[in-house]
Amino acid sequence: MTTDLAIAQENEQHEIKPITEIAQQVGLSADDIEVYGKYKAKLSYAAMNRLQQQKQGKLVLVTSINPTPAGEGKSTVTIGLGDALNMIGKKATIALREPSLGPVMGIKGGATGGGYAQAVPMEDINLHFTGDMHALTTANDTLAALIDNHLQQGNELNIDPRRIQWKRALDINDRALRNVVIGLGGHANGIPREDGFDITVASELMAILCLADSLADMKERIGRIVIGYTYDRKPVTVADLGVAGAITMLLKDAIKPNLVQSLAHTPTFIHGGPFANIAHGANSILATRAALGTGKIAVTEAGFGADLGGEKFMDITAPAIGHLPDAVVIVATIRALKYNGGVKLADLKTPDVAALKLGYVNLQKHIQNMQRYGRPVTVAINVFTQDSQDEIQTLQDLCAADGVKAYPTTVWADGGAGAKALAEHVAQIVNAPTDFKPLYTNSDTVEEKLATIARTIYGAKDVAYTGEAKRDLRQIKRNGWTGLPICVAKTQYSLSDNAKVLGAPSGFTLHVRNLVPKTGAGFIVAMTGDILTMPGLPKHPAAMDMDVDENGKITGLF
Amino acid sequence: MTTDLAIAQENEQHEIKPITEIAQQVGLSADDIEVYGKYKAKLSYAAMNRLQQQKQGKLVLVTSINPTPAGEGKSTVTIGLGDALNMIGKKATIALREPSLGPVMGIKGGATGGGYAQAVPMEDINLHFTGDMHALTTANDTLAALIDNHLQQGNELNIDPRRIQWKRALDINDRALRNVVIGLGGHANGIPREDGFDITVASELMAILCLADSLADMKERIGRIVIGYTYDRKPVTVADLGVAGAITMLLKDAIKPNLVQSLAHTPTFIHGGPFANIAHGANSILATRAALGTGKIAVTEAGFGADLGGEKFMDITAPAIGHLPDAVVIVATIRALKYNGGVKLADLKTPDVAALKLGYVNLQKHIQNMQRYGRPVTVAINVFTQDSQDEIQTLQDLCAADGVKAYPTTVWADGGAGAKALAEHVAQIVNAPTDFKPLYTNSDTVEEKLATIARTIYGAKDVAYTGEAKRDLRQIKRNGWTGLPICVAKTQYSLSDNAKVLGAPSGFTLHVRNLVPKTGAGFIVAMTGDILTMPGLPKHPAAMDMDVDENGKITGLF
Repeated sequence: MTTDLAIAQENEQHEIKPITEIAQQVGLSADDIEVYGKYKAKLSYAAMNRLQQQKQGKLVLVTSINPTPAGEGKSTVTIGLGDALNMIGKKATIALREPSLGPVMGIKGGATGGGYAQAVPMEDINLHFTGDMHALTTANDTLAALIDNHLQQGNELNIDPRRIQWKRALDINDRALRNVVIGLGGHANGIPREDGFDITVASELMAILCLADSLADMKERIGRIVIGYTYDRKPVTVADLGVAGAITMLLKDAIKPNLVQSLAHTPTFIHGGPFANIAHGANSILATRAALGTGKIAVTEAGFGADLGGEKFMDITAPAIGHLPDAVVIVATIRALKYNGGVKLADLKTPDVAALKLGYVNLQKHIQNMQRYGRPVTVAINVFTQDSQDEIQTLQDLCAADGVKAYPTTVWADGGAGAKALAEHVAQIVNAPTDFKPLYTNSDTVEEKLATIARTIYGAKDVAYTGEAKRDLRQIKRNGWTGLPICVAKTQYSLSDNAKVLGAPSGFTLHVRNLVPKTGAGFIVAMTGDILTMPGLPKHPAAMDMDVDENGKITGLF
Repeated sequence: MTTDLAIAQENEQHEIKPITEIAQQVGLSADDIEVYGKYKAKLSYAAMNRLQQQKQGKLVLVTSINPTPAGEGKSTVTIGLGDALNMIGKKATIALREPSLGPVMGIKGGATGGGYAQAVPMEDINLHFTGDMHALTTANDTLAALIDNHLQQGNELNIDPRRIQWKRALDINDRALRNVVIGLGGHANGIPREDGFDITVASELMAILCLADSLADMKERIGRIVIGYTYDRKPVTVADLGVAGAITMLLKDAIKPNLVQSLAHTPTFIHGGPFANIAHGANSILATRAALGTGKIAVTEAGFGADLGGEKFMDITAPAIGHLPDAVVIVATIRALKYNGGVKLADLKTPDVAALKLGYVNLQKHIQNMQRYGRPVTVAINVFTQDSQDEIQTLQDLCAADGVKAYPTTVWADGGAGAKALAEHVAQIVNAPTDFKPLYTNSDTVEEKLATIARTIYGAKDVAYTGEAKRDLRQIKRNGWTGLPICVAKTQYSLSDNAKVLGAPSGFTLHVRNLVPKTGAGFIVAMTGDILTMPGLPKHPAAMDMDVDENGKITGLF
């Protein structure tokens, strides 16, 4: 079988250009970039800041239906669309999130597109890249060590060890670190207390890196982070600890957007990588602004389905960018919709128009959700070889009935050439007059905002709060944080908070377990259902199939 | 006060050369290096492998007396000596360890020399550098997650959770993570067990990175790591888990030596950073061989005093390099020797020849220890402005009586010009005929080897083993690991295992708490006294004084 890695390795050898050339393509000089090897670069501060102000292109957001085990290929379509837009002369750029090593070593393999629609150098991007993720882990855990040291050295700030909200982090899927007791071993070894590790992408520092618009803004946001509460329930911030400068220093290079290329040489900014289920799910606004400042059309992506990444992009990320999407592309596959229609994974190769029609409700709900924001919407059908012409036509007809055009794309096999029709359509609709309708206003109460998201986007009947969540609500009110937007942590597999409910459920209750104010990032995380902020590894981790030979050539990184 | 950081920042602006130029100076082409920004590079695999075979220069080892709060400046002298050797036309290169962020954020500040004898770019090297330390942390903790996942998924290998030897790691001083309980929270969240975090520099992977001579050797060593034991006490290796390839893959770039420069443009390989108290304390053999392959004289350094870094260099590192030091330089300060002679820290500015004579016994013991290996030895007196001429002359006379020349050096203030006389002498003695006498042979028993180190190097009367250490000895014998050399983990502040005993103690007992076989690194760690493998932060961590402005300029990183 030809793997994404094999295609990347084969084509990188022949096709990849020095990153200085890619930079030149979009008017970036040698001084505008800091190269990391021949094929990766970071923007300099000067270039990063300059591109924030540059005349902006049009923004295309790529999102999708709820993911299924059948695979959707959203990153692949995002890259293929960028390549296609370039092919038809639209001078496109791409902005994507950085892969997290946790899932790479676990189940997912690479996260840089696939086939002939990939970002390269694929191995580097999927492994340590330019070190952003590691800088975030280090900054996160240095802050944690400084907090525990503060307790140990006399606890001048009167921090209640039972109410420390700041958790440790690793960019690793490690379920055994979800709940730990630290500080054991007697008085020289810290204050014993309960703690836990999140995956780094769920760290508030990752959200801050992605939402800050300058180094100075990042330092202010870091200073505002609430790490916990005193014995008399007053919030304690990083500024109170006196280490906002040191933590920002550890992120001084990580804040600079990274530049790479697609196999077709489309300039690709890959920067920041919050998951969309447990965080806000979009690359950094600095990278998106850089893509907007260097391309006539910038294509970006939001994580998982439009209920998570899409909603959060519209309500959290786009306001921070200061630029709403000029068009939205929703990726779907015939296979995934049939799976939503009740077909078993093993049977997805068999044509089944009836199941497709049943499963279409999931796509339909996401179309309606994105339409309600008042931006033009279109659908990309990521075609697999087994899909029948009849099925493709049926899906196009179903979409047409809901007022959107759907385009079959074959970018995995054909690169940008496989998305030309989609690209032509997108290039047209980005210029359509728009009328943005926000989902909620920040002055609504937390409960109102959550109810609006749950009812309008998910299709829920109501929202139920645990006792802990109610206590959290009172604390949020007491501290005057109710004006922040909401970032829902929810399973990606369903519109509801139950991973097993496919299609477009309605009449269900959204269960809010607890609420975590992230005052540095500037949102409140609502933990729903049994979503976890630290994934686990499967029975047969992908790591077991990975290898590297004596010349550094990697195998098994799909 | 002028800080090392301020001098580095000032001089970097005016003096620093593109790393491509530094590479050219020693015959490395643009294809031989992979640049990380303008001033840092890694060797390519081809260059790394080629330099292993290249005709080799002479090797100078810089070591020191036991460190005191007064400061010795061993890295500063190492860099200054390299610069001085270049000044007198000897075409020198330097090989150093990478700083660990834990101490940087804790108490130490930077670890790249000082004043006008520094490696640059100072900020980058002291913070994330080229990501080696983070790659090691990630590889270490990915392995840990794979072990706990193995337990969770059925434990096919029958691993006893109480006998897992592999610990987690962070490059952070975090005492609260020394002893933890993980896997809490019910059946979905792992198997509860006791665990702990070491600082990354103490990880066996760091030792392997520093002792492997190729990527293939690294993979074999990683496969041999014993992560723990089965319920019937059989060792379980990384190869048994089937993940040696994946863990090596995570280190495929970290294994490549980094090239930077001193302020005087001496090519400086900085790679790998095991501490000498809790690990073997020398930079990678790949970096030292690269320095030997590119310079006529390569100057390298071993951590802490000659009892730790010096002894381990002679007995563990040099055999792995395949090249013994052609000369040994021992760094001492008048201040530190007076401190050893009983003078309080606050009174060290006052001339005190009597105290100097008393404290000289510490230097004398280190001179004798290094002389016994049969290599030429000399002393560098790192002169402080308050040192009196009388004191300096006294120290030179004392050294002369023990058969070694001692040279005052002023490299902090004067750069290489402050070590010219030392350099002339070193350039001469590296050509002296030598007669190497190893301290022990690997076929000695573990107890014999430990007794030899304790008596000959430390001055101990005998070695005492706890019950746990005795059990460890039996296990080591049962598994046939007795032929490995010994890496003693001991306080750096004393020749004994008690940090408070200064001078040159004798008649004491060395207390061995436990023994940890590191079969991948190829040595047995003997934990003595109350040495810890995870440091803590002080009451006022250095982090509290660090800051970065809106343009990325750092302050407070001394």
